[in-house]
Amino acid sequence: MTSPTETAPRRAQLVGTGLVGGSIGLALRERGWHVTGFDRDPDRAVRAVEVGALDEIGTDDAAEIVFLAVPVSQVPEAAMKALSSKLSAVVTDVGSVKAPIVEAVDNPRFVGGHPMAGSEQEGVDGASGDLFDGAVWVLTPTEQTDTEALMLVRDVVSSLGAQVLALPPERHDALVAVVSHVPHLTAASLMVLAAEGAEESGALLRLAAGGFRDMTRIAAGHPGIWPDICTENRDAIVEALDRLVESLTAVRSVVASGDRDGLLRVLERARAARVNLPSRAVQAEALVEMRVPVPDRPGVIAEVTTLAGELAVNIYDLEIAHSAEGDRGVLVMVVDESTSEAFRGALFARGYRVAVTPLAS
Amino acid sequence: MTSPTETAPRRAQLVGTGLVGGSIGLALRERGWHVTGFDRDPDRAVRAVEVGALDEIGTDDAAEIVFLAVPVSQVPEAAMKALSSKLSAVVTDVGSVKAPIVEAVDNPRFVGGHPMAGSEQEGVDGASGDLFDGAVWVLTPTEQTDTEALMLVRDVVSSLGAQVLALPPERHDALVAVVSHVPHLTAASLMVLAAEGAEESGALLRLAAGGFRDMTRIAAGHPGIWPDICTENRDAIVEALDRLVESLTAVRSVVASGDRDGLLRVLERARAARVNLPSRAVQAEALVEMRVPVPDRPGVIAEVTTLAGELAVNIYDLEIAHSAEGDRGVLVMVVDESTSEAFRGALFARGYRVAVTPLAS
Repeated sequence: MTSPTETAPRRAQLVGTGLVGGSIGLALRERGWHVTGFDRDPDRAVRAVEVGALDEIGTDDAAEIVFLAVPVSQVPEAAMKALSSKLSAVVTDVGSVKAPIVEAVDNPRFVGGHPMAGSEQEGVDGASGDLFDGAVWVLTPTEQTDTEALMLVRDVVSSLGAQVLALPPERHDALVAVVSHVPHLTAASLMVLAAEGAEESGALLRLAAGGFRDMTRIAAGHPGIWPDICTENRDAIVEALDRLVESLTAVRSVVASGDRDGLLRVLERARAARVNLPSRAVQAEALVEMRVPVPDRPGVIAEVTTLAGELAVNIYDLEIAHSAEGDRGVLVMVVDESTSEAFRGALFARGYRVAVTPLAS
Repeated sequence: MTSPTETAPRRAQLVGTGLVGGSIGLALRERGWHVTGFDRDPDRAVRAVEVGALDEIGTDDAAEIVFLAVPVSQVPEAAMKALSSKLSAVVTDVGSVKAPIVEAVDNPRFVGGHPMAGSEQEGVDGASGDLFDGAVWVLTPTEQTDTEALMLVRDVVSSLGAQVLALPPERHDALVAVVSHVPHLTAASLMVLAAEGAEESGALLRLAAGGFRDMTRIAAGHPGIWPDICTENRDAIVEALDRLVESLTAVRSVVASGDRDGLLRVLERARAARVNLPSRAVQAEALVEMRVPVPDRPGVIAEVTTLAGELAVNIYDLEIAHSAEGDRGVLVMVVDESTSEAFRGALFARGYRVAVTPLAS
């Protein structure tokens, strides 16, 4: 005999059923969740049910977590609505810009999020339940964020196969300007340049081999999300574009002056960095358990996890053990041994005492 | 009984047995050729024999075609040597820049060439016999180029699976600056920018998802060939870099001013161009045969084929039928029906009369 609590599925709510929302729905349902959702475009919600990304269309007051997979500019309003109608659910989003959203929502039950996975496809028909497998999923807790809320989101997105990386929202925005937003604008600029050249000579696009195709692939994506992103993350994008233009201008002068050694230095540096780019597949490394006594107040877990994010420490597992007295707890984390020493040092500098124990691999 | 002429393999000579040279050797040997070759680095030639890219190391006075797969700056000297020691062989190269080479060699038996295929791997161990399958292979005949020499190179590289595109050497250089050289320098600049950001925050490179990885993949290639390319094609590269910087500066001002419509216009244009980028796999289309009476003198075939290149007309087959009188011939070409009308018009404007016959598909 199975008791009802053992068989009752966990329940999630999706707002927005495009590519990312649909992929979250598929991934959750593959793991036994019951997923309710809706989309501003009712046809998209219907399609989400058809492809298996939703159990049903609508809202679910019993959902323990709400994923907002709507354009960046619509997140604050959708978050407010979800937070006020669901009095205990945790709410998270998937927007590509975090600081303005986190600032606008400012609620302990809201955790900003951004899965670093996408596709040049669009819509729920491009959705896939393994989109997040091995991908980095950034969370941006603040001092206001409730610890239990953060840990719930962390556990759920980890269960979808993602590696969670906690970062301060402003830091996230500056970093994605460099690795995502400006590369996208650059791909578009290269493609437009080639298209102009193709008007002069029909042969141009036939000369576009693999390297050019790789570099411009993301320019095939739907432009609709970009005005929002560029508005919300304007300052960081402009700064990164300025640095890129500066860097290309320096390369131009190296080429114009025939400085062969200067050119080799730039290309060697780029090559070394590209070869060392961490691969999506995480290497199995020796792991250690870190136990950190912490005061039991909001903000502590956010402080520790964003510190881990800054140091690129991957936290494989995280739980908080509350003490009987109620005002202290122990944060237990599993991290790579190779990064644990730097992490311990940084925690120590902030007044935390850390016990480190190797785990059998 | 088989006569010796039926069984004697055709013979080719390779100078340089790196990735491209090795791939040519493999592809030729898969098609029954006897391939002799050498490399400045004797170990590389030994390795080329081991991987099956060469039958033997050395030079072959009986070779009918010589492929020079050496760095751009070494092509003219290697070409002179091959042309003077092999009194009837046709000589071609695979360099990424054409005008300086073609001008320096200036011999009817030399045909400049550039297969638009590569790999971020390097050396003969990355070589593959199907590297050129479906790839565009540019040839840059001039008025001095011997018709038979051009047709021999054309036939051989077509037999390796490549699509031949004839272009004036200067035009080739301007176009590859846009679709190959500047994209490469841009990938390197983006990667260096990210590496600098990673020094500030260890998290940065973990945020680099698929789009960034695609855009910087070519930056992992060996930098050794680039000083030559940037020296030989300096003017075209500087001009294309200037246009890219101008274009990025325009995007910057669109972002800085919050011009959402302006941003959408740029991205929509890029998207349309990227979606229409011809794919490497050629669609089977209706073909037509074009017959063009031509005076039997050097330069005619180069004029017609470079005109086809400019119009992005893919010539699937090409032969010249000499008339009995000796001073006239008929050029017979097979091209896509969709492009034949524009091609016929352009030929007509240059004084050629063209008969077009549909081919059964």
